[in-house]
Amino acid sequence: MIKVNLIGAGNVAQHLIQVFQKNPFFEIQKIYCRKPFILEELISLDKVTSNIAELTPADVTILAVSDQSISELSSKIPFENQLVVHTSGSCAMDVLDPKNRRGVFYPLQTFSKNKPLNFSEIPLCIESEGMNDLVTLKKMALQLTEKIYNINSQQRQALHVSAVFVSNFVNHMYVLGNEICQENKIPFEIFHPLIAETAAKIQSISPREAQTGPAKRQDMETLNKHMDFLNQSDKKEIYKLITQSILNKNVKEL
Amino acid sequence: MIKVNLIGAGNVAQHLIQVFQKNPFFEIQKIYCRKPFILEELISLDKVTSNIAELTPADVTILAVSDQSISELSSKIPFENQLVVHTSGSCAMDVLDPKNRRGVFYPLQTFSKNKPLNFSEIPLCIESEGMNDLVTLKKMALQLTEKIYNINSQQRQALHVSAVFVSNFVNHMYVLGNEICQENKIPFEIFHPLIAETAAKIQSISPREAQTGPAKRQDMETLNKHMDFLNQSDKKEIYKLITQSILNKNVKEL
Repeated sequence: MIKVNLIGAGNVAQHLIQVFQKNPFFEIQKIYCRKPFILEELISLDKVTSNIAELTPADVTILAVSDQSISELSSKIPFENQLVVHTSGSCAMDVLDPKNRRGVFYPLQTFSKNKPLNFSEIPLCIESEGMNDLVTLKKMALQLTEKIYNINSQQRQALHVSAVFVSNFVNHMYVLGNEICQENKIPFEIFHPLIAETAAKIQSISPREAQTGPAKRQDMETLNKHMDFLNQSDKKEIYKLITQSILNKNVKEL
Repeated sequence: MIKVNLIGAGNVAQHLIQVFQKNPFFEIQKIYCRKPFILEELISLDKVTSNIAELTPADVTILAVSDQSISELSSKIPFENQLVVHTSGSCAMDVLDPKNRRGVFYPLQTFSKNKPLNFSEIPLCIESEGMNDLVTLKKMALQLTEKIYNINSQQRQALHVSAVFVSNFVNHMYVLGNEICQENKIPFEIFHPLIAETAAKIQSISPREAQTGPAKRQDMETLNKHMDFLNQSDKKEIYKLITQSILNKNVKEL
């Protein structure tokens, strides 16, 4: 059994609270957040404090807060030489105050409040200053998933940028496609199978092999037709730039 | 039962041949393509000809060829006043030679040679000049899928441009993410769950609701960190432009 303090009440914190409560390996010792009532549907409020000075040492203290708050909050933790980790993809381990033993426990997933997640499908990226602490983090991670990766701070930065491409930017492509549909009275659901298949392909073949479409085929006639169609400037610029990038990769392949 | 002529031997044609052969509702009367041997593993070669003049009238003749070839090949069809359709997302119905009754039978999906497809999951977009022919196309489509949409040529153009965004450009985001991973010795499989979840979200919530990430949060610190990280110019330009587009949508929401 492992005793956990949690700092934060956002998406990641809420998902962690739910998964920790379901698993007897974890005991939530205390949660600190500014507005405890936010959590009243998830956990008994006697476990929650709005005074960080009330936290006491636990096996691990997890800061699941915005990147900007990690440094300051970690310095306000009222104990020393304990294992303290953050859950951020984009912050280095050393943004944590060095008075505690530092680590990272980064679940690589997109968290939406209203959609339940299967944690066992989520890769957990762990890092720590000391080997013993890495063992602790690995034990915790193994309770949640089989997908555990040792990722150092530099790699995690690369990982986070890649995640923006393969998730946030992908979703924005859905947003733009949806807008074109709405303007032309086409139900967006028509794309559900295509979207599912495009993502499913990647599980078995490489993205390069999976590329299709007019830019991949160097089908200039279709590309020009699409450019004429897109007279709204923001979509046209994006269409142009991504198309050029696909064309450039083709050239490199020759 | 419906008798079908097919013109073409590419991805779409090959998938249609396979699905028509499995379904007793369809009889493939003849296939025309330039190099019949390409199809020798799919169908008996006495069904295939390299001489388009050998085609005879059927209930429907399907041109599953490149956009550039539709017009010319449709004019070489050696009969008149029959139902002739193309399968292109980006060509209007009237690129077909008017000597035959024209229509469109467009499966909205990404076709890769090496990956089998479940046709029942594929939306079919149909269009025709006459109502009787639309009934025929609908009967055919119903044998393959329940997802049938009446889409006119102008809407199909919009659909095709949207499809480039939600599929081809999405895949290119995977390509770019994969390159960043390779440069930093991170296995791309770490993203499989995130990619699957990002696509799965869209089946139940709108793309706008599903948007997450530093641009959506207007987290300028992370955005600047990522820009610093991306010193390779092609990815940096794309990062900048898509981020700006997400930021612009936020502003419109306020």
